Amino acid sequence: MQETVGFIGLGVMGRPMAKHILDRGFPVVVHNRSPKAQDELTAVGARAAGSAAEVARQCTVIITMVPDTPDVERVLTAEDGVLAGLAAGSVVIDMSSISPVVAKRLAALVAERGSVMLDAPVSGGEIGAINGTLSIMVGGDAAALTRVRPILECMGQPEKVIHVGAEPGSGQTCKVCNQIAIGGALAGVSEALALAKKAGVDPVRVREALLGGFASSRVLEVHGERLIKGNFVPGFRTALYQKDLRLATETAAANGVALPATALVSQLVNALVASGGKDLDYSAIGTVLFQLASVK
Amino acid sequence: MQETVGFIGLGVMGRPMAKHILDRGFPVVVHNRSPKAQDELTAVGARAAGSAAEVARQCTVIITMVPDTPDVERVLTAEDGVLAGLAAGSVVIDMSSISPVVAKRLAALVAERGSVMLDAPVSGGEIGAINGTLSIMVGGDAAALTRVRPILECMGQPEKVIHVGAEPGSGQTCKVCNQIAIGGALAGVSEALALAKKAGVDPVRVREALLGGFASSRVLEVHGERLIKGNFVPGFRTALYQKDLRLATETAAANGVALPATALVSQLVNALVASGGKDLDYSAIGTVLFQLASVK
Repeated sequence: MQETVGFIGLGVMGRPMAKHILDRGFPVVVHNRSPKAQDELTAVGARAAGSAAEVARQCTVIITMVPDTPDVERVLTAEDGVLAGLAAGSVVIDMSSISPVVAKRLAALVAERGSVMLDAPVSGGEIGAINGTLSIMVGGDAAALTRVRPILECMGQPEKVIHVGAEPGSGQTCKVCNQIAIGGALAGVSEALALAKKAGVDPVRVREALLGGFASSRVLEVHGERLIKGNFVPGFRTALYQKDLRLATETAAANGVALPATALVSQLVNALVASGGKDLDYSAIGTVLFQLASVK
Repeated sequence: MQETVGFIGLGVMGRPMAKHILDRGFPVVVHNRSPKAQDELTAVGARAAGSAAEVARQCTVIITMVPDTPDVERVLTAEDGVLAGLAAGSVVIDMSSISPVVAKRLAALVAERGSVMLDAPVSGGEIGAINGTLSIMVGGDAAALTRVRPILECMGQPEKVIHVGAEPGSGQTCKVCNQIAIGGALAGVSEALALAKKAGVDPVRVREALLGGFASSRVLEVHGERLIKGNFVPGFRTALYQKDLRLATETAAANGVALPATALVSQLVNALVASGGKDLDYSAIGTVLFQLASVK
């Protein structure tokens, strides 16, 4: 059966993701709050729908890619939302990064209508979306994943589409873990570079030396370079990372887990936002540590 | 000129490092506090010397590889230490991980005797030492490094021998930065795995998914696996990492830098040591976070 794919949310991530699905020959129906992004997609072969409900009525697989938990809730449960148009036997895939708890609740609502919801948040950012190299963390029913795998593999290589768990919300929990791991690495890299700068050792050499050893990481490679060059053009906006760390803190509390390092990283993010940095790339949280050391 | 290489300190790291130098055809003179390790090296072609001074008298390049700052100070400045036997025109290379401030002071003492001291601490651990794939962070005179580079390249590939800076102590500062970056990454990975476990999501899948994305790091790869398997056979002992973080804290204070994430990691290390973990691999600091979440 040829699936017709709905794509709701055509932001920085959603636009290239939807284009990859079109490129592989799937019929795609798009919807976005502002119509300009819709025009960009219809120009390359997508159809536009006037509401999320309309997308659901025309499609067998509906993808949502919006900024935050309340946005996904709205897109699904509003009067003209996905649930209002959803036929039984469909698959809804939320690729946004949202609360695992809410993901589970929304999956139950979709199940009540005889369809399946998968949570499938991504890592890899705008570059990963453009290159079709996103890593995709999928939670929910394995059979539904098998069904939609060819669609997900338009956006990330097969080995990067990981079934994290059958429990709805598992993918979102994994994404939260991803952001936690990145936060710790970023704090470590920032403190290392702050010390190097203040001690008069060339941070370019330090980064190079560390990349050859056990401290090697994507964060050191990419964010280390950003911090050295002072280039904080997003990338991934600090406001969104702040949201992700709020999810981490909430998820930790809900599950009975203490995250002291993440708590510290959250405060650095708050400090960056307080000084007007919400639209900078989130690697700029390292500059808060640079300020503590009076280095630039 | 064929250099004769002295090697003082034949521990877990020093033994394989000295063997690699022998293997490349350099004459090697060894000295170690306990004679058993010396026997292992003389069996494969090294000569043994009765004291560090004796090593210095017989060699043009003298390498020290001992556990901590006071050990290096003793090996150099004791009555029968390196300085007592050092001829002008020699190069002393300290490959231990010690205080950058002390490294600078010792380099000045060596310079007074008409020789050069390089600080060249390593990253890569026992496996890196055995495989000859250490990353080596060199501080000090560039010409001296050029002279001894063929010796250092016995222990790490050419591209991994990095001249961090001409200022003595630069290599040690870089090593401190390395341990800082690793600490942050390890805290992040540990918290991510604690949350996954407690939330009932398979940490094996989470690690796999994260390795495909931006959270990818050597720490996630190696220590993530250790934490999942509960395998804390060193590796690198927690007692030595505790020493390295003490150096980080001291170096930060000496340079006017604040390291809040490293301070947190230090406290986790203290907690691990308090519960009897000093001889475990340092990745076991993640278990302190697991305990906070009541997961194993």
